[in-house]
Amino acid sequence: MGFSYTIEATAGMARAGVFHTPHGDLPTPVFAPVGTQATVKAVLPRDLKEIGATLVLANTYHLHLRPGSSLIYELGGLHHFMQWDGPILTDSGGFQVFSLAQLRHIDDDGVQFKSHIDGSAQYLTPERSMQIQHELGADIIMAFDECATPNDRTVAVAAMERTHRWLERCVDYHYTSGDPNKQALFGIVQGGIFPDLREQSVAAVTQHNLPGFAIGGLAVGETKAEMLATLDITLPLMPNDRPRYLMGVGHPEDIVESVKRGIDIFDCVLPTREARHGAALTRYGRLNMGNLRFASDSQPLDTTCTCYTCQHFSRAYIRHVIKAKELIAHTLLSIHNLHFLVNLARQLRQAILDGEDTFNAFATQFLEDYRQKITI
Amino acid sequence: MGFSYTIEATAGMARAGVFHTPHGDLPTPVFAPVGTQATVKAVLPRDLKEIGATLVLANTYHLHLRPGSSLIYELGGLHHFMQWDGPILTDSGGFQVFSLAQLRHIDDDGVQFKSHIDGSAQYLTPERSMQIQHELGADIIMAFDECATPNDRTVAVAAMERTHRWLERCVDYHYTSGDPNKQALFGIVQGGIFPDLREQSVAAVTQHNLPGFAIGGLAVGETKAEMLATLDITLPLMPNDRPRYLMGVGHPEDIVESVKRGIDIFDCVLPTREARHGAALTRYGRLNMGNLRFASDSQPLDTTCTCYTCQHFSRAYIRHVIKAKELIAHTLLSIHNLHFLVNLARQLRQAILDGEDTFNAFATQFLEDYRQKITI
Repeated sequence: MGFSYTIEATAGMARAGVFHTPHGDLPTPVFAPVGTQATVKAVLPRDLKEIGATLVLANTYHLHLRPGSSLIYELGGLHHFMQWDGPILTDSGGFQVFSLAQLRHIDDDGVQFKSHIDGSAQYLTPERSMQIQHELGADIIMAFDECATPNDRTVAVAAMERTHRWLERCVDYHYTSGDPNKQALFGIVQGGIFPDLREQSVAAVTQHNLPGFAIGGLAVGETKAEMLATLDITLPLMPNDRPRYLMGVGHPEDIVESVKRGIDIFDCVLPTREARHGAALTRYGRLNMGNLRFASDSQPLDTTCTCYTCQHFSRAYIRHVIKAKELIAHTLLSIHNLHFLVNLARQLRQAILDGEDTFNAFATQFLEDYRQKITI
Repeated sequence: MGFSYTIEATAGMARAGVFHTPHGDLPTPVFAPVGTQATVKAVLPRDLKEIGATLVLANTYHLHLRPGSSLIYELGGLHHFMQWDGPILTDSGGFQVFSLAQLRHIDDDGVQFKSHIDGSAQYLTPERSMQIQHELGADIIMAFDECATPNDRTVAVAAMERTHRWLERCVDYHYTSGDPNKQALFGIVQGGIFPDLREQSVAAVTQHNLPGFAIGGLAVGETKAEMLATLDITLPLMPNDRPRYLMGVGHPEDIVESVKRGIDIFDCVLPTREARHGAALTRYGRLNMGNLRFASDSQPLDTTCTCYTCQHFSRAYIRHVIKAKELIAHTLLSIHNLHFLVNLARQLRQAILDGEDTFNAFATQFLEDYRQKITI
């Protein structure tokens, strides 16, 4: 048992690796579909498998409030509950709690907040987040951190320092009360868009000998250029022999740019959210499938795509079920969009294995195609 | 090509047969899931296949208004459009049009109505219904009939007589402009709950040498006893060598009682509608899965069920996704409920093949179990 990370090839800063987990090997780079409430919205687990998904994310905040982590524990844990037998990652609940703006009070011990479901008073601390994640039983669990708005230095310093103090408590709790052979605790680097803070944070977080590390506090309001500059500063400081997870990132071009800089793991609600908005992701941009021009289009969403949706259904059919408000529209578009990002990560991995020239050519061509947005 | 019906065994009035269609053999008795708008709500075609569904119904009224039958024709027909390669049955549109109450005007030529989607003026006649159904291309198409409230004799007489006149026009149009080898036109017997009218209607409708016949105007407001009494009167008058379709019927006990009396084909929105209301069908009655008592129940919906949902998910999980308003709740419950009725028809068929004693014992036991409703 236990966790280890093997790097199979590199291309510049980009890495193709395998993260070994109790629920199977996780080839990286990898894109993780988000199953907030113990289901990836509108998609059955067997369809996720067929898509090629390997890692699924679930949200501690949501599952803690409903149905409750102790219930999931009694029912055999999250893998059994949601019928996903591959690796699962749970976030710490921190990000959602901090998003509650008017509903929470933070101090150094933890965060008081009101449930968005029934208004009940709730309290999360580093220890409680660990305990909940132990009950859920995901393979990868995340430290309880404070994710602040990225470009206010005073706020960023305070959030970073609290994140470091809370990480100590997470590590203490996990390594005394948890099972580090069954669950890998990842630490989270904060520091906003400030290079010196990121440097400090990497030093503080990686002094713990953890099986993986995440970069938090990005894709939360900063510009693309600021995000990439922060990755440029931060990633070379991080240990090479541990997987690196960029939390909440999933725009196709961001995935490519981040893999180039050395990120291994991604998650994002983008593909399923776009599906619910009637949009299809393609290499040439985003298609609004409700558009009249698709009404009699007999082509698939993407003629090069191998997903179930594209192998069977026309754009005209997809548009019809969107207009008719049929639930199958969400399912068909989610399958396609998830396949697009899961497959993008897989293609990036293969390109890295094929060598630096292949990887650079693939990344350059993809970004060029995607930025054309000729089909939007 | 063409259509024929083979009876393999009988048990009293009950029959096990095979209706041969251009899209494959249809063993009867059979329950057809309803795919109103060219999709069985929340269920992918491949999941329908796995459930064991053989025949799917689609609605002419809905598909005529959106996306339009000529578009579906241009895109290769309904089978290709909705990716169902087995037999399909389309209704005539009449039932929906007559349901529009305030929105329609009937005369002997046809029905004027306003679209429920955009209020546009529409006109359906027997010929137009045939033409639309020709464009859709279902294996079984239905005559354009008038389905009146069942227990007003004056209304029932007028509706029946109009139905007979319209049937002549449907037959004329179909056998001159359609392809009877590719599409089987079924005539519909009307007459409300009045034995003499049903007798008249059987005589008028079956004078046409059609490949199958339906009983209309039931399950539309009469009592169960009235419905069964009408079947008792009507079915012995109908030709033995043609399949008999009881339109819109799908309550489990009604299926059993109707098969006993000689019905071969059923359709109903019940399983998918119940799924959207959070209910599971079982042999012992209907389970309201939102109920608190299922919150920590690790059993499947039905311990004897072989559907995907029951093979994988606990009642606790189903309740969770209902409470969390996740779309997967509709899918999982629809798969189970459709499997329940498709499988009930299959079990009835097998019992008939196994002999009259087996069939009677199965039907009696099922009705006894179902009427206990011990788990409601």
